[in-house]
Amino acid sequence: MTEDATARGLEGVIVGETRLSRVDGEAGELTIGGFPLAELAPNARFEETLFLLYEDRLPDPDELQRLETELVAHRDLPAATEDLLRAAVEAEQAPMDALRMGAASAGLARGPEEHPAADARVLVAQLPTIVAAYWRLRNGDEPIAPRDDLRHAANYLYMLTGEDPDEAATRGVETYLNAVVDHGLNASTFTARTIVSTESDLVSAVTGAIGALKGPLHGGAPGPVLEMLREIEAAGDVEPVIRRRLEAGERLMGFGHRVYRVRDPRAEVLSGAAERFYADAADRAFFELAREVEGVAVDLLAEHKPDRALQTNVEFYTAVLLNGVGVPKELFTPTFAVARVGGWSAHCLEQLADNRLIRPRARYVGGRGRTWTPLDER
Amino acid sequence: MTEDATARGLEGVIVGETRLSRVDGEAGELTIGGFPLAELAPNARFEETLFLLYEDRLPDPDELQRLETELVAHRDLPAATEDLLRAAVEAEQAPMDALRMGAASAGLARGPEEHPAADARVLVAQLPTIVAAYWRLRNGDEPIAPRDDLRHAANYLYMLTGEDPDEAATRGVETYLNAVVDHGLNASTFTARTIVSTESDLVSAVTGAIGALKGPLHGGAPGPVLEMLREIEAAGDVEPVIRRRLEAGERLMGFGHRVYRVRDPRAEVLSGAAERFYADAADRAFFELAREVEGVAVDLLAEHKPDRALQTNVEFYTAVLLNGVGVPKELFTPTFAVARVGGWSAHCLEQLADNRLIRPRARYVGGRGRTWTPLDER
Repeated sequence: MTEDATARGLEGVIVGETRLSRVDGEAGELTIGGFPLAELAPNARFEETLFLLYEDRLPDPDELQRLETELVAHRDLPAATEDLLRAAVEAEQAPMDALRMGAASAGLARGPEEHPAADARVLVAQLPTIVAAYWRLRNGDEPIAPRDDLRHAANYLYMLTGEDPDEAATRGVETYLNAVVDHGLNASTFTARTIVSTESDLVSAVTGAIGALKGPLHGGAPGPVLEMLREIEAAGDVEPVIRRRLEAGERLMGFGHRVYRVRDPRAEVLSGAAERFYADAADRAFFELAREVEGVAVDLLAEHKPDRALQTNVEFYTAVLLNGVGVPKELFTPTFAVARVGGWSAHCLEQLADNRLIRPRARYVGGRGRTWTPLDER
Repeated sequence: MTEDATARGLEGVIVGETRLSRVDGEAGELTIGGFPLAELAPNARFEETLFLLYEDRLPDPDELQRLETELVAHRDLPAATEDLLRAAVEAEQAPMDALRMGAASAGLARGPEEHPAADARVLVAQLPTIVAAYWRLRNGDEPIAPRDDLRHAANYLYMLTGEDPDEAATRGVETYLNAVVDHGLNASTFTARTIVSTESDLVSAVTGAIGALKGPLHGGAPGPVLEMLREIEAAGDVEPVIRRRLEAGERLMGFGHRVYRVRDPRAEVLSGAAERFYADAADRAFFELAREVEGVAVDLLAEHKPDRALQTNVEFYTAVLLNGVGVPKELFTPTFAVARVGGWSAHCLEQLADNRLIRPRARYVGGRGRTWTPLDER
């Protein structure tokens, strides 16, 4: 690599190695910790996926128990973090801003000592509690303390709703968390790796990653997918609404991806999870509607934009599945962070194990040799 | 740039353009906003340097007045941020961790609306108050409210000490802030640009940058320079201490830089500023000692490590100057952030003005095609 190589946005530049996940956009394949996504996501508890990312193998029952115990021990929020979330609600801060504030203060939960592997667990444990507490406070309710007898995903739902989640909803959330836990070097994961490459700590890295995920070019917009589906539901007929949108030059939410040229493998897995969840759900018709919208949209997109290869992306069935299990659309992106913190923290540990400072260069295009003029002569 | 190009740590890769600063490591030249550092740093108020970075020219008196008024308006901390800093002290969080928490909550100071240019000013205004309030609380003192009749640098010193700083100390701090306000695409600045490249906000970007600056490979260690100087001062003789350190294989703090092969141009400017400040100071002898240590150290390093070209770096005279004006060594890196937030915020605005998502790739080196084994069979 010469000093003159230029790569705007670093597109196509390989910055290092990872064993955590592999994205094949042409084939539509996603590998996580050596498992094809469809093999891992519907089977694993989220805690098993975390162990897989950290250790590159599945845990035995004792190891899984130990990891679950460590996570449970860090679920409670420090009082100062809860106070901060109250202030965030008061100042009308958006959910991702509140999450960034809460995560930035995660050191309060573990004192001054930094240990990367332990900090990973603290952060994974804290994020769901931060999101749920903020959401309760924003709706004028008191936060619900975490339970220590529930799995990670079930406890998240419980803190949001105050109700004991059934196994179907828990499995739905777990499949979602597994499906989006890691996805190569996206902008937030790269941010986390850049921050720890200075030998900074994981709280700093994950806080930075949350800030990157907040951006609409990255965290995306599963919320608008739900709004589109509700609009179509209200209209009572699928094809005319989609056709009108396309003819008006509007975007169809939930289709197209920067990397995937075929159906996003996560859409596949989440569609299956949604189908299983909605099979016994009261609003089964909503899933059928979504399926119909997908079919019509893909057909009409191929007709209207034949050169674009626009397929269903991860956001489409994220919206359908999370809506089904009871996560409000305002929390879709924070719930993405609740999953992705597994990948962020594993990438940080991988970076630290074979570290090199990440520091590119910029080409200077400004002035030169300016001379000072005193203020009263300007 | 092909997809196979690999660049570990992105060394030598040019990720984009900037008009903000130019580092020439071979010649030992640093250009900021078109000015050679030595032309800008000793002359400008920090507010003038900020305007230069934001607008690419020096302000006229009215423009400078307006910027100063905007900054003054955002100096006060929200009550929730001050509470958070109390909790940080209670949980023994380090200064950079407290600063990250405070910065992450800067949205509380401006409500829910995001405006990049306005957010830049909020962040620049808040950081000194966060650092000073944390430091006072950590020492068992109450925070000192900012004054609206003092320049940025003078107000920072005032909030730290409660005393009206004299012009010499103010000019010392201003020269320091100007000298380190920007320095090409270092790891923290690159972190900030990566975060806003997702179209996230400046609070998120600056919070991430603080996390990166915290790392010892980036934020460095001006504190240990001071400790070394104090050790030499106590020993009463310069050369034997340095010789003993070198023969024991210990590092000399304050010498050598990844980029500069000659004397760091910031060391030059800070040395001049320190000389001016100490000229009338009570401990003028400390400056003379530092100067002697520099001379002896550079000579002995050339003798012991003739192939390394180890010259005085920015940390050496940062320690001498900040110690002189009354900034405690625990706050050297946070004070670096108080300066660098000018560069971070300007880089964010530059990135947003011609944005492209920053997203490199990683080479996958993990397993493939693993199959699921149920927990009870492991």
